Amino acid sequence: MHEMGAEARKAFGVLSQSSTESKNKAILAAARLIGEREDAILEANAKDMAAAKDKGLTGAMLDRLELTPERLAGIRDSLQQIADLKDPVGDVIAGWDRPNGLKIERVRTPLGVIGVVYESRPNVTVDAGALCLKSGNAVILRGGSESINSSVALHGCLADGLEEAGLPAAAVNYVNTTDRAAVGAMLSGLDGNLDVIIPRGGKSLVARVQDEARIPVIGHLDGLVHVYVDENADLEKAAKIIVNAKMRRTGICGAAEKLLVDKAIADKAVPELTTALTEAGCALRGDDASRSLDDRVTPAETEDWVTEYLAPVITVGVVDGVEGAIKHIAAHSSGHTESIITEDQATADRFIHGVDSAIVMHNASTQFADGGEFGMGAEIGIATGRIHARGPVGVEQLTTFKYVVRGTGQTRT
Amino acid sequence: MHEMGAEARKAFGVLSQSSTESKNKAILAAARLIGEREDAILEANAKDMAAAKDKGLTGAMLDRLELTPERLAGIRDSLQQIADLKDPVGDVIAGWDRPNGLKIERVRTPLGVIGVVYESRPNVTVDAGALCLKSGNAVILRGGSESINSSVALHGCLADGLEEAGLPAAAVNYVNTTDRAAVGAMLSGLDGNLDVIIPRGGKSLVARVQDEARIPVIGHLDGLVHVYVDENADLEKAAKIIVNAKMRRTGICGAAEKLLVDKAIADKAVPELTTALTEAGCALRGDDASRSLDDRVTPAETEDWVTEYLAPVITVGVVDGVEGAIKHIAAHSSGHTESIITEDQATADRFIHGVDSAIVMHNASTQFADGGEFGMGAEIGIATGRIHARGPVGVEQLTTFKYVVRGTGQTRT
Repeated sequence: MHEMGAEARKAFGVLSQSSTESKNKAILAAARLIGEREDAILEANAKDMAAAKDKGLTGAMLDRLELTPERLAGIRDSLQQIADLKDPVGDVIAGWDRPNGLKIERVRTPLGVIGVVYESRPNVTVDAGALCLKSGNAVILRGGSESINSSVALHGCLADGLEEAGLPAAAVNYVNTTDRAAVGAMLSGLDGNLDVIIPRGGKSLVARVQDEARIPVIGHLDGLVHVYVDENADLEKAAKIIVNAKMRRTGICGAAEKLLVDKAIADKAVPELTTALTEAGCALRGDDASRSLDDRVTPAETEDWVTEYLAPVITVGVVDGVEGAIKHIAAHSSGHTESIITEDQATADRFIHGVDSAIVMHNASTQFADGGEFGMGAEIGIATGRIHARGPVGVEQLTTFKYVVRGTGQTRT
Repeated sequence: MHEMGAEARKAFGVLSQSSTESKNKAILAAARLIGEREDAILEANAKDMAAAKDKGLTGAMLDRLELTPERLAGIRDSLQQIADLKDPVGDVIAGWDRPNGLKIERVRTPLGVIGVVYESRPNVTVDAGALCLKSGNAVILRGGSESINSSVALHGCLADGLEEAGLPAAAVNYVNTTDRAAVGAMLSGLDGNLDVIIPRGGKSLVARVQDEARIPVIGHLDGLVHVYVDENADLEKAAKIIVNAKMRRTGICGAAEKLLVDKAIADKAVPELTTALTEAGCALRGDDASRSLDDRVTPAETEDWVTEYLAPVITVGVVDGVEGAIKHIAAHSSGHTESIITEDQATADRFIHGVDSAIVMHNASTQFADGGEFGMGAEIGIATGRIHARGPVGVEQLTTFKYVVRGTGQTRT
């Protein structure tokens, strides 16, 4: 691991100064190689799938692990999209002149060597690797042990793509071991050779990373997403939005998990929204107030209010207006995404101002919480921490900047 | 400590949503109170000074600790300047519309509860406290034990200023104990109530913070600042710049500590620059190459190349052109500020591109590395880390942002 860190640091020195053209060449070569090696990759994946079934993995986990020709085509597409993204490195973010004639610019630069620790989704190996590469960073990838054969096969395409483009293969590394000590070494920073760590996955993984990391973490907690339906909501609109926010895809982090209803409209809203959600196949668990208004709502336990179901279940509660919603969200949210449904602009503004999450929405489905939907391109994930990056983490968020000061001999008096 | 964290978190809830007017009122009230309480503050400082002398503290450390009526006037001025700064909170950093009609904005918000750990400079108590307050953050300040009486007296003015403005005093906290365990508690994050920690001080303090912190650190390492004099430098300009960069004030982090001379010009440049520096009262320690060109240069030990003297001493070395300078800087720099002196634009651009420090300069004194000189206003320090903030950390760098998404009922297909 420590040698990998040193090699990655060296590769960063090259990659950080490489042209957009070379980086894109490497990304597109990887896409081509994934096509050429499809059989071998599917074979590696079949090994992982067989082992996972032996271990008794469940449906959703098997589904995430599985690769198919269609999914590999999707991975190749996403590489093409990353190649098409604007290279953020070298962008002049701001520039100004000082009275003494100094010209100051803030210029985007790569972040450094990035560690990505994730679970058993082989596509993350390619997406995270290529996003780091595109933004001029070296990366050390560590996926879940269940996907090791698939990830190693996919990583080989990225490494060989780099070499085809004349770039160091050590710019994208995969930790080819299921030994959990490797993660510990990454969290300690690999002798200063790892600049930041990005955890992607369930609560226990992220918690371990945040507890143990001795280097900066760009946090990705779960999406404990709330939708608040205000007294002045258009209930038809509200039903459409909440059904979409919950049910379009239940397994993504932007999926709604909690429904808060203003008590001023609860007697009408709870039954109507329960009908809409029930018809869409969603179960509801609620507090006493909501259950008294609709007996299709089953009792919610305390744990329900902080559970990310990623399934067709939602927790529903009655709150006292927008201030009650803001308070409830402050106490329970993971800081990912929240949405208010109201026709009253002042109430919407109060919610937007008062809710301190990475993404705050008004009259829109929380499933739009996605770098692509924001027009920012592919992303590693949605950051819920407060430091460095918040919300979708794409190529721009994987950079830092430096100040460039140009003078003509100025000295300070 | 843990109670202080919980109180600070609560105060953050209020302060983060307070108006610019109230925050400025608190800052200006603190300035007035410092004037009114001048005698008591100087008395507290006299206690600290007496104890420090008993402990055998040296001249520079005593100088940093000492308060005088003039220095207190300076502190009041800096509060006025912080009140005059533009409030960054609520700024719309970027905004765009999506084809589906969603309107997306990136809006500045305060960072959270900030911990600042520093040494015995009482003025930092006021500056750091007021900068955090202005940017809507709550703060927990922990200064060096030698300045405890001075810092507590100054902190009292900030706390009472907050109350005068109708804001919670717990928005600015001072850890009134010399027990080092308090720092440990802060580094552990105070039960999730501390969002980020900013260390300001010497190597050992910053190293402890970076080793032990379980929460994000906005790193402030030492200023191991290099000036590189290229073959195509105007030597007269170079002498003026290096003398200013080293000697204007030797005790600041932007002061030059290392002089690198291109071997192509060394036989002329080393003696000329040695003369200029010697006449300004600076001693030189150098490698064999520079010593062979001027015997006023005494031998440098390995340690000299990574020592921040903060004194009238500089290390001088001969390097092989701009590439040699870039390599030397990559191996030795703390990532603060470096400057190239050359009349050749292409060489300057190569240096600017190749040096990965927070601030990279061309034909300018490194003593300009300062938020005020950049036109960014007062600062907590110059960040040398790569995450979140880099370079001067002022009110804007003490913020994060959230995405605001405004819709009219959009659902995702």
